Amino acid sequence: MLRLGFAGRIYPVNPSYDQVLGMRAYPTVDDLEGPIDLAVVITPPSTVATIVERCARKGIRAVIVSTEGFAEAGKAGAKLQQQLLNTARHAGVRLIGPNTLGIVNTSNGLITNPYPMGYKRIRKGNIAYSSQSGVIGAHAQPMEDRSYHVGKTCDFGNKCDVDEADWLDYLMDDPGTRVIAMHMEAIKDGRRFMDRLRRTAARKPVFIFKTGRSEQGARASASHTGSLAQSPQICNDAFKQAGAIPVNTWQEFWEMPKVFESQPLPQGNRIAIVTLTGGVGVAATDVAVESGLAMAQFSDATMEILSGLSPNLTKNPIDVGPTMVLTDNPLAVYDTALTAVLSDPNVDCAAIILFAGSAPPVGTTVSMLARLKQRISKPMAVWMYGPRMHFRDKLSRQLEAFGLPAYLEMETAIRALGIAARYAKVKSELGREASRGSPTITTRRKAENRSKSPAS
Amino acid sequence: MLRLGFAGRIYPVNPSYDQVLGMRAYPTVDDLEGPIDLAVVITPPSTVATIVERCARKGIRAVIVSTEGFAEAGKAGAKLQQQLLNTARHAGVRLIGPNTLGIVNTSNGLITNPYPMGYKRIRKGNIAYSSQSGVIGAHAQPMEDRSYHVGKTCDFGNKCDVDEADWLDYLMDDPGTRVIAMHMEAIKDGRRFMDRLRRTAARKPVFIFKTGRSEQGARASASHTGSLAQSPQICNDAFKQAGAIPVNTWQEFWEMPKVFESQPLPQGNRIAIVTLTGGVGVAATDVAVESGLAMAQFSDATMEILSGLSPNLTKNPIDVGPTMVLTDNPLAVYDTALTAVLSDPNVDCAAIILFAGSAPPVGTTVSMLARLKQRISKPMAVWMYGPRMHFRDKLSRQLEAFGLPAYLEMETAIRALGIAARYAKVKSELGREASRGSPTITTRRKAENRSKSPAS
Repeated sequence: MLRLGFAGRIYPVNPSYDQVLGMRAYPTVDDLEGPIDLAVVITPPSTVATIVERCARKGIRAVIVSTEGFAEAGKAGAKLQQQLLNTARHAGVRLIGPNTLGIVNTSNGLITNPYPMGYKRIRKGNIAYSSQSGVIGAHAQPMEDRSYHVGKTCDFGNKCDVDEADWLDYLMDDPGTRVIAMHMEAIKDGRRFMDRLRRTAARKPVFIFKTGRSEQGARASASHTGSLAQSPQICNDAFKQAGAIPVNTWQEFWEMPKVFESQPLPQGNRIAIVTLTGGVGVAATDVAVESGLAMAQFSDATMEILSGLSPNLTKNPIDVGPTMVLTDNPLAVYDTALTAVLSDPNVDCAAIILFAGSAPPVGTTVSMLARLKQRISKPMAVWMYGPRMHFRDKLSRQLEAFGLPAYLEMETAIRALGIAARYAKVKSELGREASRGSPTITTRRKAENRSKSPAS
Repeated sequence: MLRLGFAGRIYPVNPSYDQVLGMRAYPTVDDLEGPIDLAVVITPPSTVATIVERCARKGIRAVIVSTEGFAEAGKAGAKLQQQLLNTARHAGVRLIGPNTLGIVNTSNGLITNPYPMGYKRIRKGNIAYSSQSGVIGAHAQPMEDRSYHVGKTCDFGNKCDVDEADWLDYLMDDPGTRVIAMHMEAIKDGRRFMDRLRRTAARKPVFIFKTGRSEQGARASASHTGSLAQSPQICNDAFKQAGAIPVNTWQEFWEMPKVFESQPLPQGNRIAIVTLTGGVGVAATDVAVESGLAMAQFSDATMEILSGLSPNLTKNPIDVGPTMVLTDNPLAVYDTALTAVLSDPNVDCAAIILFAGSAPPVGTTVSMLARLKQRISKPMAVWMYGPRMHFRDKLSRQLEAFGLPAYLEMETAIRALGIAARYAKVKSELGREASRGSPTITTRRKAENRSKSPAS
């Protein structure tokens, strides 16, 4: 936290040391002074409940329990976890965990993950990622190399108390969160979660990567988090009905949200694909169609501009490569074609496929795209291919600094645009439904009463 | 070619120069001496047919036409292409192209791709990649960074003569090719291709990435190669029936074949998943089940060894992480568990999920896996996660040098094993069918007669 520039005060509690990293250490929680917002507990399982009680006495109402050895470790652990939960409920304390790497907030440098690596240089953004597993952290994911734009993360671990429904309650009004991506194995209170999901999805896109979909996966989940994952039928279809976006791979989980973080929602599903090689254009067209996008038919005005450059350029996908090779000023051709296409009222979004072959030309293209992005407010996604991953990653990060999401795979770029178009439609439908009113609110009241009851 | 160490003789032909890169240049093909195997033509479209005639007179029976401006460029180009084909057929010359980046053979340094970058350092292997598009080359794909194990590549371009059926004819008996991966848009002679595909797939795995699956994609294909791609119904299902393996993304196209290049075929579909974190184990289990794999039930002997290490280790997926954290010798635990699992007669293949967190431990794990691979001949696939892509890539290359395929995504690693299990089954069925005999041979004769006819 010190290295991430956390501005708040930190109170180390440790009976064996007077000082920790130059800060005064307190022997017990009882010795702490001043208002404290959050406690992070990493002590042996049997001590945690007592510490939570002490926290409550000191007015600390939020506790993260990183300690392992609870429900995931067998029957004795499950009993300890129930005791811990009872203590917390009785004391009016909310708990994240146990068995969690905790939370990260890149905007204020709050990080309770004990693995420090990777957090300092991740790109800050407005995406909230959460997980039921340690793989969520910057220690495990190439957040810097891949530029995932992290705002907040939460690892729920065994989630004996705080769960994804609480997380959504918080995020739906959080101005620092534009997109939500949740990995989850088990759903604790299905009705409450689906209610929160529906209301959040009406305002912000929510991606869900549900694992434990298979019976065997659900059993594996039970053995490491102590809770049983749900059977497939209440998973992806239900999420979709609630307006959320199910994804099926880690890559989609991490990369898809970017399109919503930096891009406006598309007004429709008509895509233009601008490529430098025909073969990729064909493959991209397949993916677009399979993602529910329609290949845009250019307007007469656009066709006139394009055919002025070359008769080969009037098709969508537009393969600008061959024309660029034959001209003295390839970038002017590219700029004119791309501007015409993106300004076309028949085009709702664009996939831009670049070739990161050698440094200077593609660098100039990146600047050109940055200027274009300033003038035209339509969702775009970029895929860059080429022989050097490092160079591709570097250019991708430049593009993202200019507000253009760049993807590792062509398929992810196009599918992200397809998801954006579908979500834009879903959002307006959910908005209309919500404005009609009552059922949502009734469900909310019930759910809130339940969550307040210590018996639940 | 000089830089790749091509051992054969090269004869530059150019009317304007006496010397090219220190080699004597000849003004025309007519001036060439000695037996020549292959000509690469990169002259203007209108000159190509004449040059092919001259090649034939010099006894050159194989020509690669890189020149663009044929069928992909409109009606005039299509006419030129037909003339070129007639000339070649009449002269008894076989043509690759036009509009092609040509071929690469990493084993002898033969490379006709005019973009030199990327070829020198790619990992040589036994995979034959082909494409109908320029993206096949090392100039466009991160062949070095991703370690694709390239043996031969062929870009068919407009494929007016030599096509994928000829390619399969050659590769099915080529000892340097263990796996075949083909990107294709249009199929020229469906019956002939399917016949060759069936016969090749009975001997070697053939991956097919068919683009132009959608109507719009097929139209886009027509506009850059001059040939119309087929409608979806004759695509992936037909390939599967023939024993081939359809893939749907570039990543699968490039990465899936690796499992067949270095691994034995599995004897069945029972997988063991060895992970260091529970969450990834759950996700991997879902993918395994969805890929047609069954979670292996360990034998009593294995269970005894595993429960001796920790009662938590008797499940599949095996999450070794928590046990390793609690022991003084984590690698010994890992080694014992992994050896027991892989030696188990109930296990047909294994997915190994590693965490590339910090240098020394995972480096030691890599050496340990290398020793294990020497002792146990079962197919394995590795996925390494962690915060630094560069470090992941480096360790992945080390693993691959030891004969263990390492994948960029967990899902690809598991699906590759699923494909291996399915192919092993398909292969034995196709083998039985082929040994019953006649229909295949009849089809072959017919197809060969047709391909010899200049009118076809």
